[in-house]
Amino acid sequence: MLYSKLFPKTSKQVPADEQSANAKLLEQAGFIKKHMAGVYNYLPLGLIVLEKISKIIREEMNAIGGQELLMTALQPKEIWDETGRWQTLGKDNMLQFKNRAGGEVGLAITHEEAMISIARSYLNSYKDLPVYLYQIQSKFRDESRARFGLIRGRELLMKDLYSFDTTEEAHQEFFERITKSYIKAFERVGLKVRVVEASGGVFTSNPSLEFQVLIPVGEDEIIYCEHCEFAQNREINKDKAGDKCPKCASPLKVSNGIEVGNIFHYGTDYSSKMNFLITDEKGERKPAIMGAYGWGVSRVMGTIVEVSHDDRGIIWPESVAPFRVHLVGLDLDDPRIMGEAEKVYRLLQAEDIEVLFDDRVGVSAGEKFADADLIGIPFRVVISKKTENGKLETKKRSEKDTHFYNLEELIKEIKMV
Amino acid sequence: MLYSKLFPKTSKQVPADEQSANAKLLEQAGFIKKHMAGVYNYLPLGLIVLEKISKIIREEMNAIGGQELLMTALQPKEIWDETGRWQTLGKDNMLQFKNRAGGEVGLAITHEEAMISIARSYLNSYKDLPVYLYQIQSKFRDESRARFGLIRGRELLMKDLYSFDTTEEAHQEFFERITKSYIKAFERVGLKVRVVEASGGVFTSNPSLEFQVLIPVGEDEIIYCEHCEFAQNREINKDKAGDKCPKCASPLKVSNGIEVGNIFHYGTDYSSKMNFLITDEKGERKPAIMGAYGWGVSRVMGTIVEVSHDDRGIIWPESVAPFRVHLVGLDLDDPRIMGEAEKVYRLLQAEDIEVLFDDRVGVSAGEKFADADLIGIPFRVVISKKTENGKLETKKRSEKDTHFYNLEELIKEIKMV
Repeated sequence: MLYSKLFPKTSKQVPADEQSANAKLLEQAGFIKKHMAGVYNYLPLGLIVLEKISKIIREEMNAIGGQELLMTALQPKEIWDETGRWQTLGKDNMLQFKNRAGGEVGLAITHEEAMISIARSYLNSYKDLPVYLYQIQSKFRDESRARFGLIRGRELLMKDLYSFDTTEEAHQEFFERITKSYIKAFERVGLKVRVVEASGGVFTSNPSLEFQVLIPVGEDEIIYCEHCEFAQNREINKDKAGDKCPKCASPLKVSNGIEVGNIFHYGTDYSSKMNFLITDEKGERKPAIMGAYGWGVSRVMGTIVEVSHDDRGIIWPESVAPFRVHLVGLDLDDPRIMGEAEKVYRLLQAEDIEVLFDDRVGVSAGEKFADADLIGIPFRVVISKKTENGKLETKKRSEKDTHFYNLEELIKEIKMV
Repeated sequence: MLYSKLFPKTSKQVPADEQSANAKLLEQAGFIKKHMAGVYNYLPLGLIVLEKISKIIREEMNAIGGQELLMTALQPKEIWDETGRWQTLGKDNMLQFKNRAGGEVGLAITHEEAMISIARSYLNSYKDLPVYLYQIQSKFRDESRARFGLIRGRELLMKDLYSFDTTEEAHQEFFERITKSYIKAFERVGLKVRVVEASGGVFTSNPSLEFQVLIPVGEDEIIYCEHCEFAQNREINKDKAGDKCPKCASPLKVSNGIEVGNIFHYGTDYSSKMNFLITDEKGERKPAIMGAYGWGVSRVMGTIVEVSHDDRGIIWPESVAPFRVHLVGLDLDDPRIMGEAEKVYRLLQAEDIEVLFDDRVGVSAGEKFADADLIGIPFRVVISKKTENGKLETKKRSEKDTHFYNLEELIKEIKMV
């Protein structure tokens, strides 16, 4: 991609109405544009990142037998009345209104009711199970106060998977499998998570597991142990820092956290309320055993920025960076340098390396470097009058040192990561 | 994909509440599931088709310089008040309501206001233009009466591109380029379209061009000439069949049509109302020249089925079929046959050919063939006790004849298409 053509360019103006690093940096660097409180447009660079994150979670869900579908935002009141959640979520943060035909409709903030209304039309016998269905879809959450950029949005992109099993053992086995798969997916996008015990919230009376990124700006509070896997949300644990870990007796720690995923055991809660019955091996009709598994795609994008930035801008992990190389051309009014830069641009692309080429003429080196730091692409490669003997000045966004590589060495270096 | 695992299986029941071929066949074959009137869930097979259609239009938009972004469904009243469309579209079919914070918000049925509110934040000088931005995104259209399956939905997937130019000539040139690109994209998904002159509807007082698939079930009426390119929507032409073509004097024809795309010249309509000004080469501030270009992704899916089906089911064009090969295994209780079928399944996949393998044991040949016809995958390949000497019984969904190929010949045949 030529930076001269990219919409839009970075902005020098820090958004006045944003507090959080993710909203400020993503907006300044040209990844997102606020549309209204808690509602963000994804600009071309932002959409690339969103798609890369989506691809990773999609691969992990497919690997454990998930099948992707796409449910709708619009929801008829009737199916939500079956669980009583039209009332409870209506009072919480579900948008509800009347349509022109006089029907009461809502915008989905979650899809248990929708999912069961589909599943029960097709699944009937234990032979039809297990089934694991997921989607990556925009949800609407009418937060009374939107804040924290992509982390608490009113329109958000989420991956949600729903599992249907016939036995508690089969459900438990899948639950453990997806827990591992979540940790792997978070690792792949560059996030280190703690698996935290929590309440089921508005979803279920059963406990749930949260995937929390421990970071001071997080809105949750986590009590955890550094010596074992014990970790609980403040909702269910009142211990203070220094109290003894109930598992290993080490002193507990307390940290804020951002919840980037959560997984729920529903048992037969929803399926019995919605009369979703499965015939078992003995011919008896029993409610299906269900679980639900959320993974916040847009929230992950915001969280990565919270975790990985400095005072100059974003530092994208390789796996989700919009491009691998930010090729900065200087002295491009010299046709020889321009020619050389274009050649490197073409050759890197020929190696399937994604390149953002800052081909602007008449923009200072300082400005180009500042833009590169703000945007946060992993490798910055400079070509200028000073670049001699085909040596390319290369710097990783995450490191301080500059290296000089010829093209072949550069390609090798990039592909090693 | 193993058919035994696929969610869901086909259904013998014809949906009672659907009139149109697309809704009936797509629902029976397991591609979609109605959620409420005009609102459909895309099941795994349906999502694959939707993604293939999206990929094709995305490639064509990128090829003419389009940059993809993703705007939001939620819209603040304020920007729609700038054009007066909060009122006019509110009376038409835009959903509008209050959120918890007391703001008046709506769900976008189109994105001119949203697009300009973004563009004017970044684009300032003639040097910044042209810019062509598009998205593939879910729109909400509160039709008072939903009908015709995916063709007139209340929640629909659309590709919409917006062009910003500084001169009328540059705009005109892009307009012609995208017209060609649309025709090509429709051809690639298997649709033959007529380019039809029409009014600008609720969008503009300028005339527009529609891309119409001529078919008796279409809701529009088109007056067209078979001997030249003349074609107009009934809205702007009152001629009858047999009247003289105003261009070439041949007798005119009349047909119904499904509008699968439309493109608009806005001139400075929207940009002057929304004060989106660009500094030209002389330093004068002038409203940007805008065009908008819609392409109905989910509507295209429905239209393909209307155009391409028979009384047994859907006949997908190669380019958007969910799989290339429907491998039907018969006599699979014989381990030798099962082994052979699994081998062919693996070998086809190793050749990057997408295969749906009906691996169900104990399902009759008749039922498997009926399912294959209903689902409509281009190549049906049968392995059974009768398959001798490694010859695979192969039939195209669109043809009557059966051929016997060995695996190598089959792969060659499939890849030739």
